[in-house]
Amino acid sequence: MRQFLVVGHDAPTDPDFSLDDLPGTGRLDVLCRAVTAGLLLSHDIREDVRVSVVLSDDYTVRFEGSELQGLNPDERSTAALVRTALDQREDAIGHIPVETSPGVSLLRKGFEETLDDAAADGTVVHLHGEGTPAVETEPPESPVFVLSDHQPFTERETALLDETADRRVSLGPRPLHGSHAITVAHNWLDTDGFQRY
Amino acid sequence: MRQFLVVGHDAPTDPDFSLDDLPGTGRLDVLCRAVTAGLLLSHDIREDVRVSVVLSDDYTVRFEGSELQGLNPDERSTAALVRTALDQREDAIGHIPVETSPGVSLLRKGFEETLDDAAADGTVVHLHGEGTPAVETEPPESPVFVLSDHQPFTERETALLDETADRRVSLGPRPLHGSHAITVAHNWLDTDGFQRY
Repeated sequence: MRQFLVVGHDAPTDPDFSLDDLPGTGRLDVLCRAVTAGLLLSHDIREDVRVSVVLSDDYTVRFEGSELQGLNPDERSTAALVRTALDQREDAIGHIPVETSPGVSLLRKGFEETLDDAAADGTVVHLHGEGTPAVETEPPESPVFVLSDHQPFTERETALLDETADRRVSLGPRPLHGSHAITVAHNWLDTDGFQRY
Repeated sequence: MRQFLVVGHDAPTDPDFSLDDLPGTGRLDVLCRAVTAGLLLSHDIREDVRVSVVLSDDYTVRFEGSELQGLNPDERSTAALVRTALDQREDAIGHIPVETSPGVSLLRKGFEETLDDAAADGTVVHLHGEGTPAVETEPPESPVFVLSDHQPFTERETALLDETADRRVSLGPRPLHGSHAITVAHNWLDTDGFQRY
């Protein structure tokens, strides 16, 4: 499985927001593009993918490719799935995930716990401009890519990542948006490390 | 320069549309993601890029990286730039471009003329699942990538492309959304054909 863990530092934790201003809603637009970049192919879903979006270190919304229904490519409808998930936040008690729409779950977990969960199932890859160039290294079997939103990781997040990450990989010489990095990471895996297909 | 030409088959040609339903507005969401994938880096603009979006074979909106101001990563604000361009469609007379916001112009040109304009300045690359794998071929100096929206190219467009395209290149084994293909194409160029950086 391929996993993407995306950290939304200012993301909403309350469903009381308008879909008309996603950038003004803790840059929810950034997180929505990360979800669709992670899960969608042209007219298809990547079934072997899980995307976990951490909302302000309080909640995590998990999108499971193998079970997902109703994910469209546009930002607004993806944001609506997040809002629907938050609508049921009272039901997310302890660490039990609540399925809020098909293939979408809400968990009361912050970054550290979500990172630990993901790391248990795969090789954590920290995408970093100073990492090993992707073309020079084999992609792991079950990668967990950890990305931040429009802001850099906090000191605490960086320390947790440094502890947990197995590898640092660079996808290219230009600084990419998170969702674009996800697309390139998929291509790296789809083509066996840009070597063949 | 890198050019991307994106064909919107059902795209609006009239500014009288709501920003609340971009998928229902001729899949304007698809076109907006192509624009931002083509032009944006993290906290920066790709100055050596031009993105031309053909609207229902009637108009073309051209985004010029070297002059662009006010392009944000979200779909809605990009759609607003298209709407502002269409607001001034009465001024787009003959083939003279009208600058409708900094770095954004409207032209009364359809696919064939926009393709001819682009081809005059570069090497036309048809992204195609059966093309030469990108990793096995050198990227051209001044590529013009031609992409369709959520629909395939029409027969007429395919015939024009076959006449004009210098190369057919495949970016990987999975069918990608247009905006994701743009992101991968950029990475191919950024890394000298996935060879180094």
